[in-house]
Amino acid sequence: MSHVNENYLKLPGSYLFSTVGRKARAYKEAHPDKEVISLGIGDVTLPLCPAVIAALHEAVDEMGKAETFHGYAPDLGYAFLRETIASEDYAARGVRVEADEIFISDGAKSDSANIQEIFAADSKIAVCDPVYPVYVDSNVMAGRTGVYDADTGVWSEVIYMPCTAENGFVPELPKTQPDLIYLCLPNNPTGTTLTKAQLQEWVDYANRTGAVIIFDAAYEAYIVTEGVPHSIYECEGARECAIELRSFSKNAGFTGTRLGFVVIPKELRRGGASLHDLWARRHGTKYNGAPYIIQKAGLAVYSPEGKKQVREQVAFYQENAAVIREGLAKAGYMVYGGVDGPYIWMKTPDGMSSWDFFDRLLENAAVVGTPGSGFGPSGEGYFRLTAFGSHENTVRAVDRIGHMEI
Amino acid sequence: MSHVNENYLKLPGSYLFSTVGRKARAYKEAHPDKEVISLGIGDVTLPLCPAVIAALHEAVDEMGKAETFHGYAPDLGYAFLRETIASEDYAARGVRVEADEIFISDGAKSDSANIQEIFAADSKIAVCDPVYPVYVDSNVMAGRTGVYDADTGVWSEVIYMPCTAENGFVPELPKTQPDLIYLCLPNNPTGTTLTKAQLQEWVDYANRTGAVIIFDAAYEAYIVTEGVPHSIYECEGARECAIELRSFSKNAGFTGTRLGFVVIPKELRRGGASLHDLWARRHGTKYNGAPYIIQKAGLAVYSPEGKKQVREQVAFYQENAAVIREGLAKAGYMVYGGVDGPYIWMKTPDGMSSWDFFDRLLENAAVVGTPGSGFGPSGEGYFRLTAFGSHENTVRAVDRIGHMEI
Repeated sequence: MSHVNENYLKLPGSYLFSTVGRKARAYKEAHPDKEVISLGIGDVTLPLCPAVIAALHEAVDEMGKAETFHGYAPDLGYAFLRETIASEDYAARGVRVEADEIFISDGAKSDSANIQEIFAADSKIAVCDPVYPVYVDSNVMAGRTGVYDADTGVWSEVIYMPCTAENGFVPELPKTQPDLIYLCLPNNPTGTTLTKAQLQEWVDYANRTGAVIIFDAAYEAYIVTEGVPHSIYECEGARECAIELRSFSKNAGFTGTRLGFVVIPKELRRGGASLHDLWARRHGTKYNGAPYIIQKAGLAVYSPEGKKQVREQVAFYQENAAVIREGLAKAGYMVYGGVDGPYIWMKTPDGMSSWDFFDRLLENAAVVGTPGSGFGPSGEGYFRLTAFGSHENTVRAVDRIGHMEI
Repeated sequence: MSHVNENYLKLPGSYLFSTVGRKARAYKEAHPDKEVISLGIGDVTLPLCPAVIAALHEAVDEMGKAETFHGYAPDLGYAFLRETIASEDYAARGVRVEADEIFISDGAKSDSANIQEIFAADSKIAVCDPVYPVYVDSNVMAGRTGVYDADTGVWSEVIYMPCTAENGFVPELPKTQPDLIYLCLPNNPTGTTLTKAQLQEWVDYANRTGAVIIFDAAYEAYIVTEGVPHSIYECEGARECAIELRSFSKNAGFTGTRLGFVVIPKELRRGGASLHDLWARRHGTKYNGAPYIIQKAGLAVYSPEGKKQVREQVAFYQENAAVIREGLAKAGYMVYGGVDGPYIWMKTPDGMSSWDFFDRLLENAAVVGTPGSGFGPSGEGYFRLTAFGSHENTVRAVDRIGHMEI
């Protein structure tokens, strides 16, 4: 008799963004006259830039001719893309990452969920709280998180590192020693980030204790502040303790096109085993490469026109972030983030719960956001808005929130 | 201190096709004058058909305009594709599969590797021997397979169901009771298949014992023999015990384009849990949907022109299969398969080992095939050739093999 993976049954309800989506759809059905503005899920709205569109058309034409057709991609990605990433994202910033330390994938969500598979089943994980839910949920599925307390939203075996207004959203080194540390910087959901000196403390801690840092740099393109590292490999010793995840979703609008990559330096070994080799083996066995046409689209992001065009897209969303940040502050809300990242993290008014504020915002302003408690226990009493809407909708949403009855 | 998943360290050497590729590259480098023909990895060579190319261009244009841009896809796939599959692949054959029982993915390799994650860690798996290596390797990574004996190629905790010339490559019901049974039909690598009555025995066995069948139908498009089921759901009771995997790789040439799907009927439950819900949760947490443009390409496969064009491609490869089958038989080899599937399974001459024959074929005929032992212990003494080459190369390869010195 077959049995299911019982860890799945411990997961409370559905994935956060599925619940947000369901509530928004229900509201729209009940109020067909109201125009709902979504600043909820972090999905981009600008179309793919012309350089990427041109590259896609060209690659599609190649796939239609026998002489230029491409079958199975190399397991770990095409050299043209891996070499360009190594040069443009790393060498150009004075950071050493070799092309063959880069693993092309279908995006940072899959990578951040799958990366735990190469670690021991009894690994202890540490996460910032609040946190992108995939880090915890993928470890729940793997049986690492213990028992869930539905009242507090706390997993008994997870080390939470609270990031709240009180500590400026800067996580403190954990008191219990973790094996894996997930850091997302610039942060989702709080929109805040660390200086290089602050991040260096984490690298030193990991090298001192033997922990591995999973560094999610999906929002790297939004960094504007001097001294904020774009890659964890800017820190000394990071090649011995850190895995970096990157995405094309938020810098180039690839949310529906799917492309990302993982960096695992060859120096990163634990118990005599190379994590690079383990991940290569996982890629070779459980994955079959990103589509050729999409790797070509990724390449176009690094062309001179591509770079200029995606920089304009990021600037557009950064302008939205400023509108939200400044508009809500003017309306009397406490707001954080939105400078080096596309997320604005706000305190709910009058100590209202996150989901109550979600409902209130939907009912009274027809605006969809994401309840902070969905990101972890310390997210309770906070709320996330994203800068990925159209400019017009962003302005209107801020105006509605500013004028709504609480 | 972080520790790795030690199950990975049990895996012997690299993934089969990586080894084949490496050996072929080394030969080419050493013999730049020789033209190597590969009938090794099952990769297609015909370009994507015109209907698919047109759909891709159209979808790329949509992604370039704000009004028609698509961000994150629905977790489980676009309704347009799921509904078309339900109607064209199932309803049209009198088989009931609902659109919301279909999960769109990036291909059957990932699906066949990932599906084990929703089952208990102590599940006992049964595989045909020889078998597509991903079924076993993904379970090795999950710690289900016990200890590997390098001399025999046998994992201590895997139930092997030998498929050899002696039993006509038809697996017998296992003596030890498995929890999960992997069946690939038409079979990779033997190219053989089962009648509906034979498959019904497996469905009845699974329903009697509570086992779940993972039915890999990636080569369904190659079936020509009357009475061979195209879907396991043609068998009575399969909705209570079977998961079906399908691919666009071999019917429509999507090896480098990446699209597939999993069917999990809602009736399929174990221990009170719905496998459909578990897989939906996995998709929502560890995956982010297949690219919009590629789901549109998949849709085009079902258009009237698309159907006609991919049928012609399959017929082209079937013709190659006939060339190999008949040519090698004429040259005195024992050959199997190649009728309802794109693979020809041959006995090595004079009891030669599979890897010895691989080397001999590469050295003496400059032809790359796949050693049978790479697919499991009972594959020793056999060799796989694929029908996916160009017609000209296929004819030349068969001619070279027929005339080579052994």
